[in-house]
Amino acid sequence: MMRNVGSSSSSGKGIAAVVGVGPKLGRSIARKFAHEGYTVAILARDLGRLSRVAEEIAREEKAQVFAIRIDCADPRSVREAFEGVLSLGFVEVLVYNAYHSSSSYASHHPTSFTHIPFQSFQTSISVSVFAAFLCAQQVIPGMMEKGKGTILFTGCSASLNGIAGFSELCCGKFALRALSQCLAKEYQAFGIHVAHVIIDGVVGPPRETNIPPRGMVAEQSFNVGGEDGEGEGESSGVMGMDPDVLAQTYWYLHVQDRRAWTHELDIRPSNTRF
Amino acid sequence: MMRNVGSSSSSGKGIAAVVGVGPKLGRSIARKFAHEGYTVAILARDLGRLSRVAEEIAREEKAQVFAIRIDCADPRSVREAFEGVLSLGFVEVLVYNAYHSSSSYASHHPTSFTHIPFQSFQTSISVSVFAAFLCAQQVIPGMMEKGKGTILFTGCSASLNGIAGFSELCCGKFALRALSQCLAKEYQAFGIHVAHVIIDGVVGPPRETNIPPRGMVAEQSFNVGGEDGEGEGESSGVMGMDPDVLAQTYWYLHVQDRRAWTHELDIRPSNTRF
Amino acid sequence: MMRNVGSSSSSGKGIAAVVGVGPKLGRSIARKFAHEGYTVAILARDLGRLSRVAEEIAREEKAQVFAIRIDCADPRSVREAFEGVLSLGFVEVLVYNAYHSSSSYASHHPTSFTHIPFQSFQTSISVSVFAAFLCAQQVIPGMMEKGKGTILFTGCSASLNGIAGFSELCCGKFALRALSQCLAKEYQAFGIHVAHVIIDGVVGPPRETNIPPRGMVAEQSFNVGGEDGEGEGESSGVMGMDPDVLAQTYWYLHVQDRRAWTHELDIRPSNTRF
Amino acid sequence: MMRNVGSSSSSGKGIAAVVGVGPKLGRSIARKFAHEGYTVAILARDLGRLSRVAEEIAREEKAQVFAIRIDCADPRSVREAFEGVLSLGFVEVLVYNAYHSSSSYASHHPTSFTHIPFQSFQTSISVSVFAAFLCAQQVIPGMMEKGKGTILFTGCSASLNGIAGFSELCCGKFALRALSQCLAKEYQAFGIHVAHVIIDGVVGPPRETNIPPRGMVAEQSFNVGGEDGEGEGESSGVMGMDPDVLAQTYWYLHVQDRRAWTHELDIRPSNTRF
Repeated sequence: MMRNVGSSSSSGKGIAAVVGVGPKLGRSIARKFAHEGYTVAILARDLGRLSRVAEEIAREEKAQVFAIRIDCADPRSVREAFEGVLSLGFVEVLVYNAYHSSSSYASHHPTSFTHIPFQSFQTSISVSVFAAFLCAQQVIPGMMEKGKGTILFTGCSASLNGIAGFSELCCGKFALRALSQCLAKEYQAFGIHVAHVIIDGVVGPPRETNIPPRGMVAEQSFNVGGEDGEGEGESSGVMGMDPDVLAQTYWYLHVQDRRAWTHELDIRPSNTRF
Repeated sequence: MMRNVGSSSSSGKGIAAVVGVGPKLGRSIARKFAHEGYTVAILARDLGRLSRVAEEIAREEKAQVFAIRIDCADPRSVREAFEGVLSLGFVEVLVYNAYHSSSSYASHHPTSFTHIPFQSFQTSISVSVFAAFLCAQQVIPGMMEKGKGTILFTGCSASLNGIAGFSELCCGKFALRALSQCLAKEYQAFGIHVAHVIIDGVVGPPRETNIPPRGMVAEQSFNVGGEDGEGEGESSGVMGMDPDVLAQTYWYLHVQDRRAWTHELDIRPSNTRF
Repeated sequence: MMRNVGSSSSSGKGIAAVVGVGPKLGRSIARKFAHEGYTVAILARDLGRLSRVAEEIAREEKAQVFAIRIDCADPRSVREAFEGVLSLGFVEVLVYNAYHSSSSYASHHPTSFTHIPFQSFQTSISVSVFAAFLCAQQVIPGMMEKGKGTILFTGCSASLNGIAGFSELCCGKFALRALSQCLAKEYQAFGIHVAHVIIDGVVGPPRETNIPPRGMVAEQSFNVGGEDGEGEGESSGVMGMDPDVLAQTYWYLHVQDRRAWTHELDIRPSNTRF
Repeated sequence: MMRNVGSSSSSGKGIAAVVGVGPKLGRSIARKFAHEGYTVAILARDLGRLSRVAEEIAREEKAQVFAIRIDCADPRSVREAFEGVLSLGFVEVLVYNAYHSSSSYASHHPTSFTHIPFQSFQTSISVSVFAAFLCAQQVIPGMMEKGKGTILFTGCSASLNGIAGFSELCCGKFALRALSQCLAKEYQAFGIHVAHVIIDGVVGPPRETNIPPRGMVAEQSFNVGGEDGEGEGESSGVMGMDPDVLAQTYWYLHVQDRRAWTHELDIRPSNTRF
């Protein structure tokens, strides 16, 4: 269930838990926090792949990285996973970046509403919101006690506008945005910084592993803005936003001075129409 | 499971199904459509009370009214209820007006996020969105076939802004708004009018049964905007918006010319601050 | 400056003043209010054309119609025009529907920002907002005194989202929406209904005079949502929304019960993508 | 008209022009860019006070600082001021932070709409939007030529929601947001980063000069979000947000990687209700 990878023991900093870690955004965020000295817990469904990511980050960043299996569609799995996370120490940072990758998301093709299986709709909302709810409930008491903490949610353009053929995605992302607003309003006075990042574009692989052809322009008008809880949602062919660059914004939100906190911001590449 | 109350047999019009009928908004909407000649199916959890409402509307409006039990928290119950609704004929109008009344809604007191039982959060989202999804899936194929139909969703101020202590409500209402946008964008070209009504204020009992004291001002800054699926959410003491007046706007949306359809509007009493 | 056309003398109702009357939306709104028994004042820059519209409405609706010249880009002209309007009696309804038609609006072609003459930007804002401000200031005291009145502003999709190449339009329409919100919040408790109508589509000529080809679909993604103060902005060739149908929504807003007032709604044809 | 204060000659970097510099936000932003090696041009109406700010920044940051008089209510003054700015070299950064401080802003007391002098409304819109339009038109051609540049606009909560009694502020701030969106959409593909900062709270003096009492909480629900073009709008008594902290976010937006640009973000202190 959990694999500890890493060298150093204690950094004085808390734990940064990143839920929804595949090959793209989740990995880049985890690596950034590891790079900055955090002990990192990364969570996704495919423990094998997750372990390889953990090893890679641990090796490259000389950091302590824990790989913990989570199935965001299953509340019991979420709870068990966070028992593991909490056992590591004070969870100072929670990044919630998971979504359910149905076939339509991967392909960016709309599904006629009447053809969406109810089970699929339920799972999508469960991963987008129910698991986020549970993760937040697990980490907030510790943050309240310490009087500090950061909770970052990944949204996308579907967080703001309904899209024909993507109700599974939109309903979950609208609800996640509501959750973020409610938590920010309730907890920021207690020192917990809750923020919602609207990624308006397709996230691709990091650039060091994949050089984009010159002049290439992202062609998608929306993306799911996060990473599949199961870690299988690799988009192939489309050159998207560099997740290492996106991770810088997550880090910036974490280190913002509490006298001037941002709750919501959008991010898109300069070469996209919006 | 179903109680048929009424006199006339066929009106040439289709069925108007109203989900979430207690003593207030749902009843007023059902009555308005009955008054205008529709056969009405009203759905809520408490069949006894629902039957009394059905009898009252049937008697007063000389209309055919069907009372059908539904438990919006239970997908199987929703499906069975709509088998009943669909057996009545072409469902031309669906009004989705149900929400889960947890104790905090009734009292309008916030609940600390960490104290919300997961089960309660799940049920709230189920009633707000999952059941709305299922109801819409049931009626859209018939509307597509006829090339006409109206689907009206009840929202509230919590559809637009998160509120500290009300994440159950806000997450469900944000998601319902997303559903409404997705459906409008997908189906309006096929003649199905989907609209989202943002009721910004507390809904009270109809005025004929309850004369408001002069000068009374609604004091709540938000309400759940709909009616409890169980029909027990009677607000006591607070004088709210007259549901018969609100029902006029639902009717107006239904009869709007398709060359100029509204997808979203807000409603509030003139004596409220906003 | 003013031309009185019409027969009957007093209707018991107040005056409905419609600012921005060309061949389309403004005319249809004026006609609707005339049809419902209001004495109507129509205002635009081209008094010749305006007088013909006034005669037509007066004849067809057996109503009293006043044509008053206004140049919305000139504050003095606005003030003088409203002295005329106020001299007719109690202004119960103000519909503000004027915009400045620069060449880019008519053609729906974007103008590079650096090529917009400052004078043109100024005039656009003056017509969209300054004149609306002055008109509202003129009519509100009378409405306050009577404890009733309706002020309707015409917006469009550019009221909600900036559009590359249309800053003249968007800045004015955003500002007009702000004005509408401020006035609604300040005056609705005094019985003045202020509403903002977002017309999401191109307005065409009324249908009785111009039969649309079957299957024709509106192709523009935005329009200015109102009518040129000068009344010269006739769109040729493009088949748009029927202004007579749109006028019904303006009328509906006017007659809404004050216990359930709408401040903002959108309207678009069912055959448009949004 | 212009006073050059400073030591070093050329930094290789361009000019950062900050419009609307009084004792608070504008000064802090200017100082931050000076600290990071930019030659800074600061613009406001009161040249005497502006010169003292320039001297202070030049001395403390060992930077080259130009004080240029501007009257944002007067288009000719804006144009002349920017001839001065452009003569200094390539304007790489424009921060537009000016607003018109009528008496109601300073006191945060609403003004009844009918009591707002038209002249005051006009001036407010002129300072908020007309001058911003002119400044942007002056600097964009140079940015286009270099393929880079940053334009930052200061907004506030009144940029998003109308407020009864503050139409002067809201209309201008809504319009400025529209301008920011239009410019971002038109120019970001050319390497110009346009962003809109929503400051949700009252800006106070920098903390080194004014230690806040412990436990003090900002009590205003909105502020004008910028600084008076005339530099006289010092708020006395109210302890607001530290402008030096806010300036960090402006800097962050400037240095964001163009593969992930933010167009809009909000900022508020953790101890404020929102």
